Amino acid sequence: MRYLGKQEIEDIAIGAALLGTGGGGDPYIGKLMALQAIEEHGPIKLLDPEEVPDEAVIVPSAMMGAPTVMVEKIPSGEEAITAFESLKSNLSTEIYATMPIEAGGVNSLLPFALAARQGLPVIDSDGMGRAFPELQMVTFYLDGLSATPMVLSDEKGNGMVLNTINSVWAERLARGATIEMGGSVMLAIYPMTGEQMKSSSIRNSLSLEENIGRSIREAKEKNYNPVDSVLELTNGYELFQGKVKDINRKTESGFARGTATIEGIHHDKGKELELNFQNEHLMATADGELLCVTPDLIAVLDAETGMPITTEGLRYGARCIVIGMPCDEKWRTEQGIATAGPGYFGYDVNYTPVEQLNEQEGNHDA
Amino acid sequence: MRYLGKQEIEDIAIGAALLGTGGGGDPYIGKLMALQAIEEHGPIKLLDPEEVPDEAVIVPSAMMGAPTVMVEKIPSGEEAITAFESLKSNLSTEIYATMPIEAGGVNSLLPFALAARQGLPVIDSDGMGRAFPELQMVTFYLDGLSATPMVLSDEKGNGMVLNTINSVWAERLARGATIEMGGSVMLAIYPMTGEQMKSSSIRNSLSLEENIGRSIREAKEKNYNPVDSVLELTNGYELFQGKVKDINRKTESGFARGTATIEGIHHDKGKELELNFQNEHLMATADGELLCVTPDLIAVLDAETGMPITTEGLRYGARCIVIGMPCDEKWRTEQGIATAGPGYFGYDVNYTPVEQLNEQEGNHDA
Repeated sequence: MRYLGKQEIEDIAIGAALLGTGGGGDPYIGKLMALQAIEEHGPIKLLDPEEVPDEAVIVPSAMMGAPTVMVEKIPSGEEAITAFESLKSNLSTEIYATMPIEAGGVNSLLPFALAARQGLPVIDSDGMGRAFPELQMVTFYLDGLSATPMVLSDEKGNGMVLNTINSVWAERLARGATIEMGGSVMLAIYPMTGEQMKSSSIRNSLSLEENIGRSIREAKEKNYNPVDSVLELTNGYELFQGKVKDINRKTESGFARGTATIEGIHHDKGKELELNFQNEHLMATADGELLCVTPDLIAVLDAETGMPITTEGLRYGARCIVIGMPCDEKWRTEQGIATAGPGYFGYDVNYTPVEQLNEQEGNHDA
Repeated sequence: MRYLGKQEIEDIAIGAALLGTGGGGDPYIGKLMALQAIEEHGPIKLLDPEEVPDEAVIVPSAMMGAPTVMVEKIPSGEEAITAFESLKSNLSTEIYATMPIEAGGVNSLLPFALAARQGLPVIDSDGMGRAFPELQMVTFYLDGLSATPMVLSDEKGNGMVLNTINSVWAERLARGATIEMGGSVMLAIYPMTGEQMKSSSIRNSLSLEENIGRSIREAKEKNYNPVDSVLELTNGYELFQGKVKDINRKTESGFARGTATIEGIHHDKGKELELNFQNEHLMATADGELLCVTPDLIAVLDAETGMPITTEGLRYGARCIVIGMPCDEKWRTEQGIATAGPGYFGYDVNYTPVEQLNEQEGNHDA
């Protein structure tokens, strides 16, 4: 157990942008909300999963919606409390702690804002080890836990309790409601016991984000490039260096979908990298050759500062380094690949671990 | 208080088709469900509103969705019980009785099926005195009662509890969810006290349906035309006699929308009646002259048998009599007309009571 103050939140926000793999919503909003909550309520207690009693009731919290909308419609924090309190009343029990469902983007930070205001601890783990765009794309789903009862709350005061036959239906009904409610809502979701959390969640992902963020911050302060230390922390690979040449994005069915083309510079000169995203970067190919594909992680870093760039933040002409990182082993099972692999997102490639795609060519920097 | 058996249900179903003004879903499905429930559980207790204690909790029940879908996806009755039980648990109270939210179509009959299975009485009243396509189009809304907490249940086992800031939001969110859930769902909605029910509902509309249905049935048995007795029971007007010439209907945003053109015969020869509908018949004009418009009621009857024809049942060449009937006075207030008048449905005419539109021309048969 330790307490997180403003510096830790700043670092986690940077790491969240990186593990957000370009999506999950800009962590900036979540960071502002968490910092404001610490300002008002003091430091936030972070628990190691092992410190949580087996019989404790845990309720993850999250925002649902398209990142483009989130930027325009910043939540007050009241919606999260309403969703949380409504689920507490539905469960007729006290809640021991909250946690993120995804390590990545705004959803890594939002549970801190809620926890500070509710006087609850946050658990150092999540359900993805990265960001993904749909509610069933969590290790909890792979382990048979139910997303419901879950609550959606909007900023206007509308609320919805869902009880669905499975988490795919939860995703479907919540997505439709999110669009009706204005494009983004707050969720209290996947209620579970401490025992279930310990066996199913991806552990210490918030600490990993903090370490990533700290190394990027320190590199910036001391004016060196942080990519090597990021690759070391994440067991990652440098995939490409280049300049953004083309971006196509559109918001449809509540998702920000698109592609970006990056033109090679330095040793990648003459080549082109194509990035495919649906909120998150999901597939990277260079001149038709697969370099990294979901559920493995792809992040785009500013070539100068090493700061992660979201899909929304990609700008024409930006110089960047694209990295690939292995996902948690839970995603590499048959069910994991069926749930969040390339086929699910409509890409006609077989999943191959990023290590295999890159080590055999000898370009692993570690 | 009296008990309703199979004959009463058969009669109510005919009256429900007439007050359904062409919509509300074919009462046939609701009738089958109610008859089956009586077969299994015996006659159903019908209460006069005055017999209900002020402090009793009343929960109306209904089906939501497009009539076209309802015909293809007949509910088992389990969804209604699930919705009802879920709202009971949400309210943490016993429920004294159920009732329809609309007198018209399938929703007049469904509460009987639920009541028989739950051992509850049905109250002889409703919230429209007719059928309307949206959840806020009830006298309860005009009187400031909330549609929520309400529950939606589908046949797959998915459920949703809504708490909205007003009943227009309840309609919007429930409509979206209904489409996601396959086009039709069961609702437990507008929970209220006995006192609220007595002051807000339209009274004895189920008995009116029964009387209409009985008069049509008896006319058929004795081989005379029942139109005159229907007009007497409803204070209605014969608007037109003719033959269906043209029908345009499409299902969009969960509604069955369209127009029908009826070519005059007998004394209406040479004229044409245009009917506009959105689930229900909403406006009737003959050669550009307004004859009847929502919230007043328009029904199309088979010219031979006097049996009501739904918008879905309208067929090319069918000979029919179109009648207009005054709505309840609650709909003739400024708020009533704003909620369910011609402007709300996008028709560019002012509301004029059917009596004024027809009496001045001396074609009232009474």
